[in-house]
Amino acid sequence: MKDIYIIGLGLIGGSFARDLREQEPAATIYGIDASESHVTEALSLGFIDKSAVLEDIKAADLVVLAIPVDVAIHVLPDVLNHIGDDTIVVDMGSTKQAICEVVSSHPRRRNFLACHPIAGTEFSGPSAAITGLYNGKTNIICEVEKTAFKLQEKVLDLFKNMGMRIRYMDPVSHDKHIAYVSHLSHISAFMLGKTVIQKEKNERDIFDMAGSGFASTVRLAKSNPVTWTSIFKENKENVLETLTEYIANLNDFKTLLENDDFQGVHDEMENTNHIKEILNGIK
Amino acid sequence: MKDIYIIGLGLIGGSFARDLREQEPAATIYGIDASESHVTEALSLGFIDKSAVLEDIKAADLVVLAIPVDVAIHVLPDVLNHIGDDTIVVDMGSTKQAICEVVSSHPRRRNFLACHPIAGTEFSGPSAAITGLYNGKTNIICEVEKTAFKLQEKVLDLFKNMGMRIRYMDPVSHDKHIAYVSHLSHISAFMLGKTVIQKEKNERDIFDMAGSGFASTVRLAKSNPVTWTSIFKENKENVLETLTEYIANLNDFKTLLENDDFQGVHDEMENTNHIKEILNGIK
Repeated sequence: MKDIYIIGLGLIGGSFARDLREQEPAATIYGIDASESHVTEALSLGFIDKSAVLEDIKAADLVVLAIPVDVAIHVLPDVLNHIGDDTIVVDMGSTKQAICEVVSSHPRRRNFLACHPIAGTEFSGPSAAITGLYNGKTNIICEVEKTAFKLQEKVLDLFKNMGMRIRYMDPVSHDKHIAYVSHLSHISAFMLGKTVIQKEKNERDIFDMAGSGFASTVRLAKSNPVTWTSIFKENKENVLETLTEYIANLNDFKTLLENDDFQGVHDEMENTNHIKEILNGIK
Repeated sequence: MKDIYIIGLGLIGGSFARDLREQEPAATIYGIDASESHVTEALSLGFIDKSAVLEDIKAADLVVLAIPVDVAIHVLPDVLNHIGDDTIVVDMGSTKQAICEVVSSHPRRRNFLACHPIAGTEFSGPSAAITGLYNGKTNIICEVEKTAFKLQEKVLDLFKNMGMRIRYMDPVSHDKHIAYVSHLSHISAFMLGKTVIQKEKNERDIFDMAGSGFASTVRLAKSNPVTWTSIFKENKENVLETLTEYIANLNDFKTLLENDDFQGVHDEMENTNHIKEILNGIK
């Protein structure tokens, strides 16, 4: 590949650019971002070579869209309007149904591959971009059959060389399941952080008492509010369903405690313990 | 110190024994556990030298009580009945009010120091015991003034040499605050694990979609149900209070989503983001 454009120079786009450097050392990497300071930072960090604008992408071999999902659904059709015949566009967003729908009748639909690499950290912005973020991670690809075979092949090889495992799924199932295994964890962590901060705001030293367990459980509450608002907006119905079930389970647990049913409390935890085996293999 | 007795040879007691080896290489470490197989395992792992029974502890320099808190409140008075004048007994339990109350009028109260080292992993049993678990961790000591100065001095030096930071607190405040920064995290993680397992039980491959964020948030759901049932039992009122507030916050967040108040959703997360600074310094 010769000319690669990254739209969105934060954690996801920036980390992808860093891995691209190793996989495609001869390519020129162009950066596009609504934030001037992000572009300046990405240039100074060196993971893009040049700043660009949307009008430049006609000659692109690859365009990577890594912006909040509620913005991506508006930007993607415009991106497809600007590309050439042999350009492949991939998005990296955490919800897939809306973005697949918005381009379903676009004349350039076959130039687009809908992806969700399950990778990230709780940090954000260009400075959060790290090499190797995608190594060993799962990349979920939706509606692969709607992408031109020659074009999908090009990026699938790239993904594999970056160390990703590829899984295929329809966008409706993707959004439903990801609400459970990713989106709900974020709400759980944010509200845990809120509850503790509310209670402890006047007691500065109290966090001396917090151990690594609390730090681990609340880690995702450091995540970027803009990114996550857009995800919750785009996946609202599924997220509400998971949240309703989560609250119901918490209420059931509370009732067991209130009734001094400690055998029930024990069993609830023991039945969930096999999460150990499930988590084996997740870094 | 010459003779040290560890009652409870799991993660907490076993890890303490491992650090004792380095701090007190000349001491003999005796192990007491209701489970025969734990004793055998601890001997074979080498972190205790000999098996013992409660009647042996008269000559002990130090007795460490590291058993579930609901059992500890019954065992501690009996331990104090068996010790000699110069024995110091420390407990390592995660709740402090009940255990301080149960020995408040005991003739040997001055031989007891109530401790809670905020340390642990999600694993349990003798094989989970690791060297260095307590290094850099906070150890909360309650009612220090009720322990004979000469005896407390002996173990405080030991704790510091193991790398612990000492904090002093009254048992009522301890139990109230620890419910927020530790106990609630465990319920949050267990119920998150339950919600996801419930939903996904028929879809074996779905955990391919789970990333490191889910793994981190749900990590504590691997914890030992016996240990945690006893903690929730002993700290029931405080835990119920935190759980009620947590559920209320989740319901508020749900209402914001239902009302499409995404500015509100954003602000909730942004206001909690400063958990970043709070967590600095927690490993």
